[in-house]
Amino acid sequence: MRVYNFSAGPAQLPLEVLERAQAELTDWQGSGMSVMEVSHRGKPFVACAAHAEAQLRTLLGIPDNYKVLFLQGGATAQFSVVPMNLTQPGDTAAYINTGQWSAKAIKAAIAQGLDVQVVADEKASSYTTVPEPGSFQVPAGAAYLHYTPNETIGGVEFGYVPDAAGLPLVADMSSTILSRPIDVSRYGIIYAGAQKNMGPSGLCVVIVRDDLLGKARSTTPGIFDYAAMAAADSMLNTPPTFAIYLLGLILDSLVAGGGLEAMAKRNQAKAAALYAAIDASDFYANPVAPNARSWMNVPFTLANPGLDADFIAQAAEAGLTNLKGHRSVGGMRASIYNAMPMEGVQALIDFMAEFEASAA
Amino acid sequence: MRVYNFSAGPAQLPLEVLERAQAELTDWQGSGMSVMEVSHRGKPFVACAAHAEAQLRTLLGIPDNYKVLFLQGGATAQFSVVPMNLTQPGDTAAYINTGQWSAKAIKAAIAQGLDVQVVADEKASSYTTVPEPGSFQVPAGAAYLHYTPNETIGGVEFGYVPDAAGLPLVADMSSTILSRPIDVSRYGIIYAGAQKNMGPSGLCVVIVRDDLLGKARSTTPGIFDYAAMAAADSMLNTPPTFAIYLLGLILDSLVAGGGLEAMAKRNQAKAAALYAAIDASDFYANPVAPNARSWMNVPFTLANPGLDADFIAQAAEAGLTNLKGHRSVGGMRASIYNAMPMEGVQALIDFMAEFEASAA
Repeated sequence: MRVYNFSAGPAQLPLEVLERAQAELTDWQGSGMSVMEVSHRGKPFVACAAHAEAQLRTLLGIPDNYKVLFLQGGATAQFSVVPMNLTQPGDTAAYINTGQWSAKAIKAAIAQGLDVQVVADEKASSYTTVPEPGSFQVPAGAAYLHYTPNETIGGVEFGYVPDAAGLPLVADMSSTILSRPIDVSRYGIIYAGAQKNMGPSGLCVVIVRDDLLGKARSTTPGIFDYAAMAAADSMLNTPPTFAIYLLGLILDSLVAGGGLEAMAKRNQAKAAALYAAIDASDFYANPVAPNARSWMNVPFTLANPGLDADFIAQAAEAGLTNLKGHRSVGGMRASIYNAMPMEGVQALIDFMAEFEASAA
Repeated sequence: MRVYNFSAGPAQLPLEVLERAQAELTDWQGSGMSVMEVSHRGKPFVACAAHAEAQLRTLLGIPDNYKVLFLQGGATAQFSVVPMNLTQPGDTAAYINTGQWSAKAIKAAIAQGLDVQVVADEKASSYTTVPEPGSFQVPAGAAYLHYTPNETIGGVEFGYVPDAAGLPLVADMSSTILSRPIDVSRYGIIYAGAQKNMGPSGLCVVIVRDDLLGKARSTTPGIFDYAAMAAADSMLNTPPTFAIYLLGLILDSLVAGGGLEAMAKRNQAKAAALYAAIDASDFYANPVAPNARSWMNVPFTLANPGLDADFIAQAAEAGLTNLKGHRSVGGMRASIYNAMPMEGVQALIDFMAEFEASAA
C-alpha cells in the first residue's frame, strides 16, 4: 500500500514511527488519552519533550552552552526572528545567497531594518554553485553571518562550514539537519523546520548558543524571544505536542539505527547512486556543480521536457510519487531524506532506466 | 481503556475523530502516504484545508467579507500579532480585563508600544465577575476593543457581546469557539488556539474582517501579516497540516451532530448539571458570579483543601483525569469542552457525591 514519496517536505516519515504513533493514538502510555490530549505541563508530556531534547543532544553532540528550543512558524518565521533576537534596526548582517531560501532570508532581514551585506552571491550560476572556501570576506561589524547549508529547491549544498571570522554563524538547516554529523560548536544559531528530517510540519527546532540570548528587541513576541522561550522550556505558549512526540520517536529510531555516522553513510550511498544514474545517461541531467550537489534534494531534467508529464504519471503508477520539480526550476526533483530507504532510490533508478528505454 | 479527560487544553478529542485518524495514519485517501507526508501545495491537501475552512464558515456562519487564516503560535502569539496588524507604536487600544488571559494580552500590547486603556477591570472581584453591559466606555480614538469571552483559568464567561462603540471588536475565543453559535459580524477579529474545541495544539485560527487587512507594521513577520497570509491561503510557510486535517474531521463531526445550536444545548446542559451539583453541596463551592459562569471551565474548591490530593488521586482511579485546578486558583477545575459527553460530566458528579459521602 505504501509508496516511495519523494516530496521535498512535508516528506516521507519512517513507517515504523507512523505505526507506533498509530498503535497508541487513542491511548498513550496507558493513560487512556492520546498524546495530543494530555496537558503539556503534566509530567508525562514534560518527560516526552525532555526525552526528545536529550536524544537530539546525543545525536548532534550539542554542547552544554547551547539551548534547544521547540518553536512554531517554521524556518520562514526564523528569517525574521533571528534579526529580532540578534540586532537592532540599522545593524549590519552578512548573508550568503545560494538560492531561493537564502534570498527569502535576506528579504526578511531587510524588512527588519537591517543593512544586509551579501558577501557571496551565486545567482550568476543560476544557483548551481556554492562559493569557494575563502572566496568571500565578512564585514567585521556585522551581527552575524547567515547561510543555507542545503538549498531545497536548487539541490545545492555546502561541502564545508563557512568561516564566519569570529561572528556568530547562523544556519537554516531545515533540509539537512540529522542527515550527517555536524559540529554544532561552529555555529551561533541553527534552525530547522521539522517537516523534512525531523517529523511533521508545525515544529521548528532552534539550537542557540547561550551568549546570544537576551538581546531581543523589546517588540519581539514572547514566543519568538529565544531567552524567554529558553527560560520557559519552550512552553511560554502551548507547544505543538504531537509534533514533538513524533520528533522523539524519529530520534529514537536514528539512535537505534547507529546514529548520524551510520545515517550519513546511507545518505551518501543513496545520493551517489542517483547522481551516477543521472550522469551515466544523456537522457537525464543534473545542473548542479559536482562539488555542490545535495545529498537530500536531487533535481534533474529530461532531455525532452515534453515527456515530463508522462514521466511523472508513469512514476506515480509505479509507486514513486511527488517527483515533479519546483515550478521555478522545472523538470524533476527527488528528495531523498533520511526516511527514504536505498530500496526507494533503487526503484527510482530502475524506473528511470525503463522510462528512458521506452522513450527511445 | 479511555478516560474522561477534564484537561483545560490540550484537551479531550472526540474518540471517533481519533479513530478515523488512526485508521488512515499510514495511508490517507488511498495515497500510500500519511496526511502528514503529503505536500501542503498538492491538490489533496489543498482540498483538505479548503474543506476545513468551508465547514468552519458553515458552522459559524462566517460572512464573505471575513478571511479565515490557519496560523501557528497559538493565541499567545496573537496577543502581539493583533497590535502588529492594527496599530503603530503610540496608538491607543482598549482592553477589558477579566482574568489572566486578558492580562497577558494587555501586557503584550504594551510591549508593542501601545497606550492600553483598560476600560473595565474585574481584578477587585478576584476575577469572578464580568462587567455589566453598558458599564464601561470605549475611548473614541482607540484602534480596537479587545476582550476574552471565556477565561480558561478563572472559569468566567461573558453572557453578552460587548458594545465596541463602532471600533473593531477583537476576541480571544480559544476556550469558547464552537461551543455555541456566535454572530461573527459583531467582531473585527476572532482568534483561537485549536487545542480546546478545535483539535491538537499547534494551530491558531484567525477570522478577520477584510477592512482590517493591509495595515501591518513593516517589521511584522510575513507569517503573522494577516494580509500576506490571506493572499497566500495561509501557506506562506508550511502550515501545520496534521492539525488542519484533524480540525476538518472535528468540524465534520460537529456538522453531523446538528451544528452549533445542538452543541450549545449539550454544553448548557452539561454545565447546568455540574453547577447544580456544586451549588447543592456545602462540601463544594464555585466562586464565580452566577451570571459569569463558564460553560467550558468549571473551577471548584473543596471545603477542606487538605482533601484535594485525595480527591484528585481517587478521581484518577475512577477514570476522571486532569481535575487539578490551575496553580493560581487552587482546588479543582473541570474543563468540559465540546468533546466531553454528558456521561463524563455525570460520572464526575457521581464521583463528587461519593467522595463527599466518604469524607463525612
